Amino acid sequence: MAGEREARLRRRDFATFIPIATRWGDNDVYGHVNNVVYYAFFDTAVNRLLVEGGALDVATSDTVGLVVSNSCTFFESVAFPETVEVGLRVERLGRSSVTYQLGVFRAGGDEAAAQGRFVHVYVTRADQRPVAIPEAVLRVLKGLRVAD
Amino acid sequence: MAGEREARLRRRDFATFIPIATRWGDNDVYGHVNNVVYYAFFDTAVNRLLVEGGALDVATSDTVGLVVSNSCTFFESVAFPETVEVGLRVERLGRSSVTYQLGVFRAGGDEAAAQGRFVHVYVTRADQRPVAIPEAVLRVLKGLRVAD
Amino acid sequence: MAGEREARLRRRDFATFIPIATRWGDNDVYGHVNNVVYYAFFDTAVNRLLVEGGALDVATSDTVGLVVSNSCTFFESVAFPETVEVGLRVERLGRSSVTYQLGVFRAGGDEAAAQGRFVHVYVTRADQRPVAIPEAVLRVLKGLRVAD
Amino acid sequence: MAGEREARLRRRDFATFIPIATRWGDNDVYGHVNNVVYYAFFDTAVNRLLVEGGALDVATSDTVGLVVSNSCTFFESVAFPETVEVGLRVERLGRSSVTYQLGVFRAGGDEAAAQGRFVHVYVTRADQRPVAIPEAVLRVLKGLRVAD
Repeated sequence: MAGEREARLRRRDFATFIPIATRWGDNDVYGHVNNVVYYAFFDTAVNRLLVEGGALDVATSDTVGLVVSNSCTFFESVAFPETVEVGLRVERLGRSSVTYQLGVFRAGGDEAAAQGRFVHVYVTRADQRPVAIPEAVLRVLKGLRVAD
Repeated sequence: MAGEREARLRRRDFATFIPIATRWGDNDVYGHVNNVVYYAFFDTAVNRLLVEGGALDVATSDTVGLVVSNSCTFFESVAFPETVEVGLRVERLGRSSVTYQLGVFRAGGDEAAAQGRFVHVYVTRADQRPVAIPEAVLRVLKGLRVAD
Repeated sequence: MAGEREARLRRRDFATFIPIATRWGDNDVYGHVNNVVYYAFFDTAVNRLLVEGGALDVATSDTVGLVVSNSCTFFESVAFPETVEVGLRVERLGRSSVTYQLGVFRAGGDEAAAQGRFVHVYVTRADQRPVAIPEAVLRVLKGLRVAD
Repeated sequence: MAGEREARLRRRDFATFIPIATRWGDNDVYGHVNNVVYYAFFDTAVNRLLVEGGALDVATSDTVGLVVSNSCTFFESVAFPETVEVGLRVERLGRSSVTYQLGVFRAGGDEAAAQGRFVHVYVTRADQRPVAIPEAVLRVLKGLRVAD
């Protein structure tokens, strides 16, 4: 439930970290990075790993991950021009879907400023029918498992 | 849990609807409105209702709603230049927090293309300490209750 | 030159108007719609006209308009939750390129709050080689001429 | 005029460079970073320099730069997950305004993939009246001059 706050995650809960520099427009009128932007961080972190791991070619891949649900809980605010680190782990792996857990960390912070989940279902790009997660993606995901 | 898909909501589950026209940049490289944009729809719908109901003055209000968690489940894709309608209801009301349920509907669609939750905690703008939901906000929220 | 301010345009200078509702995140930390967002208004207005005029199918058109330059001058600020009207006219028409002039108007305002230009060059989608403006696009553009 | 393309700038034309990593949502449906996003790069580069140079405190500065005009010409496309470098120089300095010239460079590219201008007028934050450029800003700008 979106209304119940989970235990706050720490750096050791994640398998890898992607630095993301904030941008001027990430701050909203209240002077902090807007909640919407955290989902852009999630999208960017996951897809960057996939592209750099050779598992996604944005222009040509026939099989792509479709976001079917995501969520985020916010504990502490962040503001431009901070650079955050986005922690990532695979929480659950199905035949055609993968659930990532993500944490947004401030410089020097050991507890997540925000944390969430992001579920990709793999589909054919042309007609969006579910398919098994491609081998190249599985190879990237293997490096993102953390023992519970 | 982000990984479990809830029952799909329908128009009758919501108390009011805000039309939002999509923009060119809402579509991502896969040709559909990106998941991140739905959270911009949520922010826009909630705050528009508050401003238009006289419960929020973005420039001057001393007490503001801070998003502490949100989530979304995606059932059907939407694409520019569609205009969606964002349905809204108050699901739970606490002393300082309110949980909204939101649904994104396509023209003519009775089932939500996407649906989610959005929790605002009311805080002092200056130092972000929780406070009771202001009276003017409660008056707006009263119109957003739907009998379960 | 970006540094010289042109004469401010008025509603009568434009051929058509597209209403665009602002979004929560359009306001930046200074409490007004950020300069970047005006370019999203331009993109949205031009492409909406093309799609609705049957001259662009985002998913399938083989020939598309590529933005090769744009500019904007800002006279007056706008803020969420205002709805603006984006005025549009064709200023110059070449074999493969079209220059639009655009104005952003506030409700009731006769002078543009901001105004700019936007140049599309038509290219093949696959390899981005310039081509003549398609007939279907020319038909839409014909309705956007204003006698000087 | 937005329709005339200037000579393409090179790295030696700029005084400093800010790396900016692209994000997933920067790509539009055509698979390249959307024109709108370049203005977010400009805003981010200029304000990052000002904040890091001690010339702007986003939360508290009484005097802030207001964008009164900007423009961009696009030569070559860029795509996620590339990191670009944004080159910056002060082109013209007035009593209350400064014109920056900016160039967006791809890794290893010596010619700008896109280049533009961005004019800040300094105003009082409260009521947006023009004021002289603050001393602390002038100190940052001094480091951004390039002999023509």
